Amino acid sequence: MAQVQRMSRLMLKTLRDDPADAETLSHKLLVRAGYVRRNAAGIWSWLPLGKKVLENVARVVREEMDAIGAQEVLLPALLPKEPYEATGRWEEYGAELFRLQDRKGADYLLGPTHEEIFTQLVKDQCTSYKDLPVILYQIQTKYRDEARPRSGILRGREFQMKDSYSFDTTDEGLAESYRLHREAYVRIFERLGLRHKVVSAVSGAMGGSASEEFLAPAAAGEDTFVYCPACDYAANTEAVTFAGGESADGSAHGPVEELDTPDTPTIETLADHLGVPASTTLKNLLVKVDGEIVAVGVPGDREVDLGKLEDHLAPAVVEMVTAEDFVGRPDLVRGYVGPQGLEKVRYIADPRVAPGTAWITGANKQDKHARNVVCGRDFQVDDYLDVVVVEEGDPCPKCGTGLMLDRAIEIGHIFQLGRKYTDAFQLDVLGQNGKPVRVTMGSYGIGVSRAVAALAEQTADDKGLCWPREIAPADVHVVAAGKALQTELALEISEKLREAGLRVLVDDRAGVSPGVKFTDAELIGVPKILVAGRRSGEGVVELKDRRTGEREELTVEEAVARLTAAAE
Amino acid sequence: MAQVQRMSRLMLKTLRDDPADAETLSHKLLVRAGYVRRNAAGIWSWLPLGKKVLENVARVVREEMDAIGAQEVLLPALLPKEPYEATGRWEEYGAELFRLQDRKGADYLLGPTHEEIFTQLVKDQCTSYKDLPVILYQIQTKYRDEARPRSGILRGREFQMKDSYSFDTTDEGLAESYRLHREAYVRIFERLGLRHKVVSAVSGAMGGSASEEFLAPAAAGEDTFVYCPACDYAANTEAVTFAGGESADGSAHGPVEELDTPDTPTIETLADHLGVPASTTLKNLLVKVDGEIVAVGVPGDREVDLGKLEDHLAPAVVEMVTAEDFVGRPDLVRGYVGPQGLEKVRYIADPRVAPGTAWITGANKQDKHARNVVCGRDFQVDDYLDVVVVEEGDPCPKCGTGLMLDRAIEIGHIFQLGRKYTDAFQLDVLGQNGKPVRVTMGSYGIGVSRAVAALAEQTADDKGLCWPREIAPADVHVVAAGKALQTELALEISEKLREAGLRVLVDDRAGVSPGVKFTDAELIGVPKILVAGRRSGEGVVELKDRRTGEREELTVEEAVARLTAAAE
Repeated sequence: MAQVQRMSRLMLKTLRDDPADAETLSHKLLVRAGYVRRNAAGIWSWLPLGKKVLENVARVVREEMDAIGAQEVLLPALLPKEPYEATGRWEEYGAELFRLQDRKGADYLLGPTHEEIFTQLVKDQCTSYKDLPVILYQIQTKYRDEARPRSGILRGREFQMKDSYSFDTTDEGLAESYRLHREAYVRIFERLGLRHKVVSAVSGAMGGSASEEFLAPAAAGEDTFVYCPACDYAANTEAVTFAGGESADGSAHGPVEELDTPDTPTIETLADHLGVPASTTLKNLLVKVDGEIVAVGVPGDREVDLGKLEDHLAPAVVEMVTAEDFVGRPDLVRGYVGPQGLEKVRYIADPRVAPGTAWITGANKQDKHARNVVCGRDFQVDDYLDVVVVEEGDPCPKCGTGLMLDRAIEIGHIFQLGRKYTDAFQLDVLGQNGKPVRVTMGSYGIGVSRAVAALAEQTADDKGLCWPREIAPADVHVVAAGKALQTELALEISEKLREAGLRVLVDDRAGVSPGVKFTDAELIGVPKILVAGRRSGEGVVELKDRRTGEREELTVEEAVARLTAAAE
Repeated sequence: MAQVQRMSRLMLKTLRDDPADAETLSHKLLVRAGYVRRNAAGIWSWLPLGKKVLENVARVVREEMDAIGAQEVLLPALLPKEPYEATGRWEEYGAELFRLQDRKGADYLLGPTHEEIFTQLVKDQCTSYKDLPVILYQIQTKYRDEARPRSGILRGREFQMKDSYSFDTTDEGLAESYRLHREAYVRIFERLGLRHKVVSAVSGAMGGSASEEFLAPAAAGEDTFVYCPACDYAANTEAVTFAGGESADGSAHGPVEELDTPDTPTIETLADHLGVPASTTLKNLLVKVDGEIVAVGVPGDREVDLGKLEDHLAPAVVEMVTAEDFVGRPDLVRGYVGPQGLEKVRYIADPRVAPGTAWITGANKQDKHARNVVCGRDFQVDDYLDVVVVEEGDPCPKCGTGLMLDRAIEIGHIFQLGRKYTDAFQLDVLGQNGKPVRVTMGSYGIGVSRAVAALAEQTADDKGLCWPREIAPADVHVVAAGKALQTELALEISEKLREAGLRVLVDDRAGVSPGVKFTDAELIGVPKILVAGRRSGEGVVELKDRRTGEREELTVEEAVARLTAAAE
């Protein structure tokens, strides 16, 4: 049974002012309430209260992982280069990977995620289909050399993560391991009291259920996602798929007509010059795909999402064109490109550029545009790809209602990897028919330290942190208002609560004013605050709910009974 | 409550043969029983059973640290260079420190131990004597780039350690924090079931209680220590202090007599030539101390322990002399040095070279020695320092009984650091009198992963591992001998045991022979093995004690009652 934590002996220094470098609410409050301290950019210490909260989150994660039959292991954080070289990630990770050498000059890295090492482990341990399926997990310190570590513990360079990996012999098995994780994650975030959305992380083209993110909506979030206010659709903005524009009757349009549009190399200048909405124009972006010039057409009022374009065309490399690429290409008139003149260039268009729609676009002549350029009549689309930046009000792909945009913190990610890693390490087991079967794999992560920050973001108010009970550093915060009698009563009640199985933090500090103690209690954010104050002599205390601020006077016995009952 | 762990679903591959590179018992058995796997030299993965054992050790450590009022925190493992530069340890650690740079070229290290960071933390958090004393601890991954990582997890490059640090305003406070740790460590190792000795780690000259090691006697140990079979004295061999030789009446000896001793530059050749025991000769070793030549005299049958000499003379640097040092020094005749002719050289001697004792030693002339060279009459000792390698049979400094030598694994170390680190960071707090007080500090470590190996070393037998109950991966290992009925009964009993609060591992594997299951059960080393075998139909099972091998047939009810009672 835990001991009563006396604040007179707790290493805790609360701050009245926000740290100068803090931008997000969780960063400010976790530092001010003495939960964490910064050691270097993106590198943090967890102080006594913070360590308790971190451990509480880890415990919930552990219990729910155990409940789906996952087995806990602990792999090293310092890893040899070779397995990451085998999969190409030693290079691919770029500057985000912490690399080092040992005294003999051998290359090592600090693990950002452990797919390679788990694949090797299972290859060593499992030889038959009877050994599978298996789900392994660890709660471990991970390393990523972020270019801009920020937002306190939300985006650190050293952080705590639960990563798990599933190994199955069949696609159905992988789908089942994925489903188990998805359900466990929902239970975990519900127990943590984290409001969250499960969103598709990749576009439908790659298989809708192959990867989903768990996002915690919060103003401090670095991810943007869309959701439908009418149905259950939600997605990472890069994963939104546009159902396709409506085809129109192209024959209704007049013939192509050339317009004199001097000095209108951009959509804005063009729309201005012609006095038409940008949405009636067709913007054609030139990019190089594996070195070859490709044009991408989207309505003039939309932006191309290069991330989405890259995802669609991967593993091809997408680059922007430069002035040199126009040399010797009289067919490409910079700023005045139109698809009707691009016989030799592959043309990718957004589905909104539907057959039969008519556009104002470049005339492929300097200072000239063309009107009534009709898709299907005057130009052909080689590939329809959804490559525009999603905007609020875009139609929901499921029900057509206007989508909403929100910011969120990514707190979990589940991924059906398939055979990428098992191919790299030739991980086969003997199948039921006696022949080798290539194993298929899933990988699943929860940011444990990040979940603490996300929870702080979602639950804090203007007075300070405000933890759900299961995650709070204590069940109850007993405050002794200051006089000897009050301190005596506070310690006596604390002992009673401890005996009843509660985790108790008691502010028994001498020489600290009641006002400072109340302010600290609200800043620290334990869900129930019990004050031994004015009426301590009569055995009457005040019980306050941290969230609602509701308070009532109770006898000691009533207060203990109330708190104990709430714990069950 | 934990679930029943079914071996049919456990990732576990036991091995019949010892791994080729394993030398120590714990290395062989922990690998064979599937507790750990090697990823690189000195870098290990903890598999499901191993993780449980590691966690059990960590839990015991945590509980006893909490019981002395220590506060758990979690500091980073990736640390900036600057604090370690401030104390000189960035350089001093040499090749043992893993160093790396981030993407901006800033220097970092992987923490081998955290004195600097904790000192900085306390400087940030504590400002008044009222904030002290404080004891902080963490259970964390540590890194040391060992020159020769070996013995499995006994000496790894990445390992789990509990490190704690105490901060006090007075020497008495530090002594008290040290005492609390010493007592907590004894309780921890007793609960872990680790036989151990607490030994002085530094010689009495530096303060007898300033540093002690906790050693677990084991053949695989890399430390040698001495202990007295008659009293409670025990010490690291480098810390043994010799009480001092007995002074003799020097006047009884005849005058110094020169001996012709051609070709006898070593003690062996000299003793041989003269036909006397080496113990009657005086060996004089020349060394350079901060560049100045110093002679060290010890009886001819003893070896100089350079480590002890360095400890005595620190921070002075001790080097061996080379041929060049004799150039221009006709007073130093190599191989024939005697203290009676060394007026210009500082002479350090072992206490055995007591006043009044007479020796055969060099005559400071080529091929000449001298007899009846009497200490105090013919030469003076500038400093008496105990600098010889301790040998079995040397007298106990406390009671004079002949000491015994043994090998052991260092599992803990407690250290009164004093103000070395607080001076480096100018860590003062406001004292009771309103003036700043320099804080004094202790540091204390337990090798958590190493304790697992030490425990395996001490408890294993020729059949395999053999854990104490509190540390074992389960309380009971239920074996289903193979038939459907037996498996059914085994699972039924397992469920009953689980409901009674026991941690159960059940071998329900199909297609594995009873012989293999029994061998695996003994290898894995859970303390109680319950077999659902031949008489399962009658509801009779066999309960076996892993350590004693005692077995008895019991009804299921009796077996459950017996195991449950043993757990209380």
